[in-house]
Amino acid sequence: MPIEDAQEQTRGAAASLASSPLVGILERVHREFAADTAGRVATYIPELGQSDPRTFGIAVATVDGEVFDVGDARRAFTIQSISKPLVFGMALEECGKDVVLGRVGVEPSGNPFNSVTVDPRSSRPFNPMVNAGAIVTTALLGGADPSERFERLLASFSRFAGRPLSMDEAVLASERETGDRNRALAWLMRSFGMLENDVDQIVDLYFGQCSVLVTCRDLAVIGATLANGGQNPLTGERAIDSQHVTNVLSVMSTCGMYDNAGEWLYNVGLPAKSGVSGGVLAVLPGQFGIGVYSPPLDEQGNSVRGVRVCERLSHELRLHLLGRTSGVRSVVRRTLRGDEIASSRVRPVAQEDAIALRRRALGLYELQGDLFFATAEMVHRTIVADIDELELVVVDFTHVSGFDEPALAVLNRLIEELTEHGRTVVAVCGHDGHIGSKLTQAAMSFLDADAALEWCEDRLLGPSGVPKQHETHAALDRFDLLDGLGDAELAAIELAMSVRTVEAGTTVIREGEVADEVFFLLAGRVSVLLPLDANAAGRNRRLATLGPGVAFGELALLDEAKRSADVVCDERSTIASLTLGALQQLQASSPSIGQAMHANLARLLARRLRSANAQIRALAR
Amino acid sequence: MPIEDAQEQTRGAAASLASSPLVGILERVHREFAADTAGRVATYIPELGQSDPRTFGIAVATVDGEVFDVGDARRAFTIQSISKPLVFGMALEECGKDVVLGRVGVEPSGNPFNSVTVDPRSSRPFNPMVNAGAIVTTALLGGADPSERFERLLASFSRFAGRPLSMDEAVLASERETGDRNRALAWLMRSFGMLENDVDQIVDLYFGQCSVLVTCRDLAVIGATLANGGQNPLTGERAIDSQHVTNVLSVMSTCGMYDNAGEWLYNVGLPAKSGVSGGVLAVLPGQFGIGVYSPPLDEQGNSVRGVRVCERLSHELRLHLLGRTSGVRSVVRRTLRGDEIASSRVRPVAQEDAIALRRRALGLYELQGDLFFATAEMVHRTIVADIDELELVVVDFTHVSGFDEPALAVLNRLIEELTEHGRTVVAVCGHDGHIGSKLTQAAMSFLDADAALEWCEDRLLGPSGVPKQHETHAALDRFDLLDGLGDAELAAIELAMSVRTVEAGTTVIREGEVADEVFFLLAGRVSVLLPLDANAAGRNRRLATLGPGVAFGELALLDEAKRSADVVCDERSTIASLTLGALQQLQASSPSIGQAMHANLARLLARRLRSANAQIRALAR
Repeated sequence: MPIEDAQEQTRGAAASLASSPLVGILERVHREFAADTAGRVATYIPELGQSDPRTFGIAVATVDGEVFDVGDARRAFTIQSISKPLVFGMALEECGKDVVLGRVGVEPSGNPFNSVTVDPRSSRPFNPMVNAGAIVTTALLGGADPSERFERLLASFSRFAGRPLSMDEAVLASERETGDRNRALAWLMRSFGMLENDVDQIVDLYFGQCSVLVTCRDLAVIGATLANGGQNPLTGERAIDSQHVTNVLSVMSTCGMYDNAGEWLYNVGLPAKSGVSGGVLAVLPGQFGIGVYSPPLDEQGNSVRGVRVCERLSHELRLHLLGRTSGVRSVVRRTLRGDEIASSRVRPVAQEDAIALRRRALGLYELQGDLFFATAEMVHRTIVADIDELELVVVDFTHVSGFDEPALAVLNRLIEELTEHGRTVVAVCGHDGHIGSKLTQAAMSFLDADAALEWCEDRLLGPSGVPKQHETHAALDRFDLLDGLGDAELAAIELAMSVRTVEAGTTVIREGEVADEVFFLLAGRVSVLLPLDANAAGRNRRLATLGPGVAFGELALLDEAKRSADVVCDERSTIASLTLGALQQLQASSPSIGQAMHANLARLLARRLRSANAQIRALAR
Repeated sequence: MPIEDAQEQTRGAAASLASSPLVGILERVHREFAADTAGRVATYIPELGQSDPRTFGIAVATVDGEVFDVGDARRAFTIQSISKPLVFGMALEECGKDVVLGRVGVEPSGNPFNSVTVDPRSSRPFNPMVNAGAIVTTALLGGADPSERFERLLASFSRFAGRPLSMDEAVLASERETGDRNRALAWLMRSFGMLENDVDQIVDLYFGQCSVLVTCRDLAVIGATLANGGQNPLTGERAIDSQHVTNVLSVMSTCGMYDNAGEWLYNVGLPAKSGVSGGVLAVLPGQFGIGVYSPPLDEQGNSVRGVRVCERLSHELRLHLLGRTSGVRSVVRRTLRGDEIASSRVRPVAQEDAIALRRRALGLYELQGDLFFATAEMVHRTIVADIDELELVVVDFTHVSGFDEPALAVLNRLIEELTEHGRTVVAVCGHDGHIGSKLTQAAMSFLDADAALEWCEDRLLGPSGVPKQHETHAALDRFDLLDGLGDAELAAIELAMSVRTVEAGTTVIREGEVADEVFFLLAGRVSVLLPLDANAAGRNRRLATLGPGVAFGELALLDEAKRSADVVCDERSTIASLTLGALQQLQASSPSIGQAMHANLARLLARRLRSANAQIRALAR
């Protein structure tokens, strides 16, 4: 689907009842500042002087790919100096930090953008946002010849914008005609040893990068790409490695708005870059990109409306970078102890009772959001605070959206320490398992929490003396449904049953069938599955798993008309079945059998309901 | 409990199995940089020249009040220039933004800290972190006389540090003796009209603020207080209004580390301030405060080890301010539709069936963490995406840790729009209700989600034609437990029952009692309560609420030995009861009664279990 269509569709759904609050806010801010006619359109590049000073657009793009705009947000203009941070990012990617910082500093200069002043200690231009620094940065871009270099630059910018960009030839010609000062800067930089290339080619590439056509919607998306760690949130394409995004945003924070860097960070608090054609790009890392286009400039060369819109949005929506506290605590989505959550495994009551005695030794920790150092440290602290009571620690990463190396180091060290102290750590990593392969120390890793819990329950059961289900071929007297019946009655039931052994994958009960039979699992393992709609993708949903000693389909005793789920063998299983007809015949000679089974069934259901309600209370917290 | 004790106790519990990863990291970094002997101890204040260059401490404090330290972290030294951002914050609080910024700028100067240069346009000192700017800021502090002004300053610093601070008289004397340049700066500022006060008093107050004794543990806590929006995370006391924290951190970001501001933000990316005695304070908003103390200084006057430790921690733990994406998405903790969650209200099956038909029209949105513009916008988008199917929208704010005005505006507007479109919005605000009073548009506000869900279920039931429970005095033939019995049997049961009317607050069933009676609620309302441990604070936990037409204590039919919970009347109620003895007598004449009740009970239990399991599956997601 073309990007434009995808965007429109998303907005359409949201607009059906109520549009995003951003729409109303942008419209109001646009209306207000449209009346503000301060500033003058730049004329030193003649082609720019033809811009209509009334043109005015605002766009905001979010890190999850929503774009909102108002006014002339789709009017194209040349990107000019807003190209500088993008080229700085390209240079970092191509040449590495050390080479780039050998040629250009990162200090705000306090001088105009076209100043010839350089850092007296190093002869480097102060930063890559002044023209001299930008030219030096541009000179670092690789490519076989001028046209390849420009194509690569255009491709990079297009990845940022999420659509193929092009160049304005008329502006380029105008830049070439009037670019003497930039030529002078380039020669000066060459004289200082900050570039070695052909000066004419470099200056021409620099003019080319300034002449790329964008809309303020593009600027918002470019900003959202930087806000999103370098990955374009509309296309999913990576425009720049995330490690360089921090560097680009740092330079934008202190040097992006020409010579009032401190005031910009103080008042607006957003890394930003302006261009002489009237564009302003601002970024709130992790949240938004903002693009504004309005040609009239203030004395420093920043778009008057661009600056005011950014100030207004920052103040009104409290977007200041340093005004935000991140939610470190919410990394732990939920903690549950073993007596508050159980797997879907159904076991004989005796085994459940044995497990219940030790359930508090199990702790489940569900994490969410980004794992970075502070959140990983919070996870560490949360688990360690409980650890005296725990033997089994299940950490569920299913809802984790990302992680970095320091977080991984903390978690691996935590797992290692817990293991050294005799605890068993189990990881739940979901189906994509992005973090699973990096957890070198976990005892086991499972696709879902249910499987992890079942494994842990087996461990809790292990040393208790009650034999594990799979080790046993259950006798009828072990079934809770037949509890309290005498040997003679059990013998009669056994005679009335038919026993069969079926292979893995066999469907024993099918949803919708008439329920006229009760099953007793003597050996093997079966799962109760809820078939999904034909529409729903994916596998059936597992409601429960049963081992030897557990009856199933027992609701047939209640004259339930139809089966409500499938039961399928997970492995080769031996199953005894008792039809309702056979049961009625039995009752003729032993009337207490039916009564006992009904009472046992009600008792089992009451027991399971109590346990289920306790789980709901814990889970609903 | 004294602060120190509280800290120790928290650390003690965490240390029982595994110490925080920070401990090991700080120890390693301390060991490594202890060997680094570069730099020279400041001597221009003679008293400072006596510092031992080997002294070296590091401390980190988190926004939730954990403090970790290593080395000489509890050695006292004078705070020196690290007082400047604190006094800047005090001035903002006392005089407001406009007055303060009329006297001092926020631009990095590129000049040494004791420069006499001022902004040529305004004659203001460049920023409050250079001496001239700091003296101007100090002059803004109020107080009747010099001693009151100093006491107020010391009280403010002490709130930041979370313990009473004092002053080093010897250093103060030394400052006074050698402070001629600062006296000159003060007179110069007075000549520019930037201060009007008595210069001697101002300079003395300035020397006093520089002579306050702190440890690097204090610096970490001061930093954590700034990181925590101005509230000291150890004491809970507010040290500075949160709106000014952003300003203080902004100035620290661009002007805190003397004359290499851009490089500091680029490399380390933490707002910071250094002092000539060898202290460095760094802040990662929302996460940490870092304090380092090591007297040898580099050429710019920053502690050599202080700078290196901050660089190392920032790189190794990825603490860069601009390297972090915040988790906007995780603001929606969980969404549940009405068919995935139910209140604890138990109703007759006919009513439950009627509600079930419309359950999908209910949406529950659980929020968490901080509500700011981007997260509120995400909430907006999430709810609006579902809205076509919804009639009732429950928004649960229980897990919300904070909110700002822009978020509140988005939410109130959303609620208003939803209401205009015929939806009913219900808020769950928890017991402290911090946000509840600000949500001007919600139809209803509840303490917990269960109460909100019950209210919504009543609304779903409302127009369905089934009479509401509280409007009815239930007849016996409406009880599901007696389903399928004939008129004669019901009449016999009625005769065997005793009926009583009891007042609100009456305990009908008490946990632990012998279960020998089944109750039928004819009118009124009762709750099933789980008494908490004597140890646990707070109220009993409500397991379920029942209205007319519902039986309770019915597990007595299963020969359950003891009651497992209390049942208490919420309002004046009419209750019929049937003892097991009376039931046995009935069976003599009508043997099918007991059988039918057992079967009905099992059916009800099976039904409730199925619903409970569906809820567990939804909640466990």
